[in-house]
Amino acid sequence: MFTERIYNFSAGPSMLPVEVLEKAASEMLNYNGTGTSVMEMSHRSKAFLAIFEETKELLKNTLAVPDSHEILFLPGGASMQFSAIPLNLIGKTGKADYAITGNFSKLAAKEAKRYGEIHIAADTEDQNHTYIPRQADLKFSDDASYFHYCANNTIYGTEWDYVPETGDVPLVCDMSSNILSKPIDVSQYGIIYAGAQKNMAPAGLAVTIVDKALAGGELPYTPIMLSYQTQIDKDSMHNTPPTYNIYMLGLVLKWIEAKDGLVGMAKHNEEKAKILYDYLDESALFKGCAKPEARSLMNVTFVTGNEELDAAFAKEAEKKGLSNLKGHRNVGGMRASIYNAMPTEGLEALVAFMKEFEAKHR
Amino acid sequence: MFTERIYNFSAGPSMLPVEVLEKAASEMLNYNGTGTSVMEMSHRSKAFLAIFEETKELLKNTLAVPDSHEILFLPGGASMQFSAIPLNLIGKTGKADYAITGNFSKLAAKEAKRYGEIHIAADTEDQNHTYIPRQADLKFSDDASYFHYCANNTIYGTEWDYVPETGDVPLVCDMSSNILSKPIDVSQYGIIYAGAQKNMAPAGLAVTIVDKALAGGELPYTPIMLSYQTQIDKDSMHNTPPTYNIYMLGLVLKWIEAKDGLVGMAKHNEEKAKILYDYLDESALFKGCAKPEARSLMNVTFVTGNEELDAAFAKEAEKKGLSNLKGHRNVGGMRASIYNAMPTEGLEALVAFMKEFEAKHR
Repeated sequence: MFTERIYNFSAGPSMLPVEVLEKAASEMLNYNGTGTSVMEMSHRSKAFLAIFEETKELLKNTLAVPDSHEILFLPGGASMQFSAIPLNLIGKTGKADYAITGNFSKLAAKEAKRYGEIHIAADTEDQNHTYIPRQADLKFSDDASYFHYCANNTIYGTEWDYVPETGDVPLVCDMSSNILSKPIDVSQYGIIYAGAQKNMAPAGLAVTIVDKALAGGELPYTPIMLSYQTQIDKDSMHNTPPTYNIYMLGLVLKWIEAKDGLVGMAKHNEEKAKILYDYLDESALFKGCAKPEARSLMNVTFVTGNEELDAAFAKEAEKKGLSNLKGHRNVGGMRASIYNAMPTEGLEALVAFMKEFEAKHR
Repeated sequence: MFTERIYNFSAGPSMLPVEVLEKAASEMLNYNGTGTSVMEMSHRSKAFLAIFEETKELLKNTLAVPDSHEILFLPGGASMQFSAIPLNLIGKTGKADYAITGNFSKLAAKEAKRYGEIHIAADTEDQNHTYIPRQADLKFSDDASYFHYCANNTIYGTEWDYVPETGDVPLVCDMSSNILSKPIDVSQYGIIYAGAQKNMAPAGLAVTIVDKALAGGELPYTPIMLSYQTQIDKDSMHNTPPTYNIYMLGLVLKWIEAKDGLVGMAKHNEEKAKILYDYLDESALFKGCAKPEARSLMNVTFVTGNEELDAAFAKEAEKKGLSNLKGHRNVGGMRASIYNAMPTEGLEALVAFMKEFEAKHR
């Protein structure tokens, strides 16, 4: 039983800023004098449409989304987009290139194979996904409709440190676990998509940012809810969108704006990650899993080299309110997910506990 | 600006019980001593899995779901199921029968036509969807994979007063706007599905109750998230489900349980609807739109016969905290949606205002 808030290192769903939760709680029964909760509002009501437009505008400004691209608020998370991407884009040539750098890019490629010919441009499984392929190592095919990669690998704790160059081939990127963590140049991408539950909002929402020139060529059996053209035409309201998640995203975006936007987030995230990586580099007990140049600022994976000790560490940490540090079941060890909403104090508390644990078990 | 809660007659998203909103607000920063919000919990954490299992069990008990059927918590609302239903079921014979009794059943049939041969078993458009076809009027085809109907027509204010008999052909029912409003016999149905945002939870969740014997025959290009067999095998966790919506559904189900379950809801809903229908029957100004035998207990449609007066009524009502009474843009007039969470006092306040308005405009 915790009477105070814990530091939750969950990979997702994960921490939300406490100010955002407080605001949501305070407005739960009566939003802004409407006499109703945002949850209860018709998606076509003036009050909700104002929230929707404001959230879209905030996201457009925060990410500097160019007018060529449309922001869609879609149900279902990134996994639904694993189908939507090929359904909407692969029709052009029937082929697509995928880089596999972890579990989710593998799942994305697997789903895409059901709709066309998938060429694997790179696969880092040879070293258990501990590195990111260099530009020169990406083997592109001649006539891909698009190139797909996952910018941050939640499970393995690696993050692309560059944007792949693909020439005329549209770049499609799953940014589920690092969107809004730093500035990006949206114009470089054909499609950016992300499940909301890490850096944006509660689970059940995907944000997809689509170059409008790429929409409209969906395969004939594409479910209408998954058609980007339909969702662009209907401004994400072909049906009732996940309204409360959109409202929460708006609150998160205001929180980011108040903290100097993505420049502020990048600085904050670099500082936080440095606290943990610096300690991992000097520790005699704990060791980082990802190659130094591939280290993620969002998910830090580490081990002691002893499975029993790893388990003991995660269990003891849990009791101290340092939660969800057990690594993904696919890889074991530990993982600290330190998204935007994780405060610096969380990293300090974690490292202090790691030092204490190391002193005991050296 | 309302300092108190209003009576929100929105067709959906719509009112939630005030006790549920209060509970959600009180637990927003720290759920049950976990030190974290439900929104922030990993879907695979013990704390969230306990919520998930409890909610599923509550729904199973409330609706008396037999063991032959599986409850799925899916993203995206009923419109996503408009695709999922044919994708999963129509492969058996390539054909299906649909009854069209309003806008949503029409959209469901339109989407299904993309996946097979759709036979229209009935269409009530000839009388602007003001009635429900009788059993004898349903023209079934010989070899339908299933028969689909929509149990309550939100826009037109009609509700099926019987369960169609289809012999061996599985019955598929969209119960988005009347699920949990009264007891039903789930064993009569092959599939029941419903968007959550009327009687269950915030928008972004669909509950689908599937006879497990019907799963597994999906068309080859079915997106994996839409495969009932996959979702059954993964217990709705092929990816991160809409966790907070599931939690809210659990709170709503506890509220229903405390009010004598669906027997209590049915009594409550009949009493509420009677207040408004009785007045419509005696009023010289207002007139109900649906045929008396087809009247919905969830959505009551009515007109004055004068479009300007209708608009004036909805506008004045809005100011008095009787909100969202304007009819759907397809039909005009007025509509009062009076789902489970609308209290009797809301109906009394509405009728009192209607009487006042009638006295002024007679």
